[in-house]
Amino acid sequence: MSENRVLINLSNHHIHLTTEDLEILFGKGHTLTKTKDLMQPGQFATEETVTIVGPKGKLEGFRVLGPVRKETQCEILASDIFKLGVKGCPVKESGHLEGSFPFEIVGPAGSLKKERGLIVALRHIHFDPESAKKFGVVDHEIVSLKVAGERGATFENVVCRVGPTHSLECHLDFDEGNAVGIGNGAMGEIIKK
Amino acid sequence: MSENRVLINLSNHHIHLTTEDLEILFGKGHTLTKTKDLMQPGQFATEETVTIVGPKGKLEGFRVLGPVRKETQCEILASDIFKLGVKGCPVKESGHLEGSFPFEIVGPAGSLKKERGLIVALRHIHFDPESAKKFGVVDHEIVSLKVAGERGATFENVVCRVGPTHSLECHLDFDEGNAVGIGNGAMGEIIKK
Repeated sequence: MSENRVLINLSNHHIHLTTEDLEILFGKGHTLTKTKDLMQPGQFATEETVTIVGPKGKLEGFRVLGPVRKETQCEILASDIFKLGVKGCPVKESGHLEGSFPFEIVGPAGSLKKERGLIVALRHIHFDPESAKKFGVVDHEIVSLKVAGERGATFENVVCRVGPTHSLECHLDFDEGNAVGIGNGAMGEIIKK
Repeated sequence: MSENRVLINLSNHHIHLTTEDLEILFGKGHTLTKTKDLMQPGQFATEETVTIVGPKGKLEGFRVLGPVRKETQCEILASDIFKLGVKGCPVKESGHLEGSFPFEIVGPAGSLKKERGLIVALRHIHFDPESAKKFGVVDHEIVSLKVAGERGATFENVVCRVGPTHSLECHLDFDEGNAVGIGNGAMGEIIKK
């Protein structure tokens, strides 16, 4: 019998920056200051925060995650959409930025207008290849995730991301976690289609 | 075949006050000023707001709903729990305040310490008796609610509230609505157990 229970951690809104954008926002030669390793190998929280600006409002103290990436990507919560004024901002898988929204970033040393990169992150589960085998899933397979409890729910359209740089962990965002009344470290049950 | 589709509207956090508490907070003889009728017969939004105070923080501009009730009841979002510092605040059906949390209310004319009344509202569906018959549900029956879409999910533990003062409508809160990417006026499918 394949396994079906997976650890869930909750993501707040956050931004990933390119080296070029990091230097525009924080100054030439600036490097990120790690505060905490995240569960996904090589990923970390940093001291750095920026302000994200939309047509109708802004989000201050917005956390930068490291390391730097090939393209700048800002992952907001659905609950941020109204505040920023970005109705229609698409739900996208990380790194799939076709059709994502434009936005502005303000840092201590400069600011930037990005033509794309603003998304609501698609709920997903990271699998190392061995775990994927145990769970019987393949990369980009869509599964459901059942969360038990008095506010229990089954989330549809959860994408499986399998690769050697991944570690077994489900990422829901704060809105999703609050809706089912869980915090970091809760468990969910994967339901295959 | 019974019906299974129901209109969903989203609730933000809000408070219901007794006449006595309303007068302490807003002054002797004060009455609520209606700004908008809500879908449930006799219920309305008001101009009045208060500040809700918890052990670790406060929520300002917190909306009062009318009319006055027999007991003061403050319905927060799960996402407010951390801000107020009320970890463990129970998920409760409206009016079922045994085991609810204490809290403080600050109004323009005075403030109040309540020994109970702070809850996270249990997701629920209002039915008039005729609609309940059509849907084949009885008062306090627990059903599931399926919301379609790219962020679709099936919420468990949705309580049916049937009575002549109710009008057919499902109430989810902002956290739940954001988690499934819907706004007011979305439709859900009732799934009986």
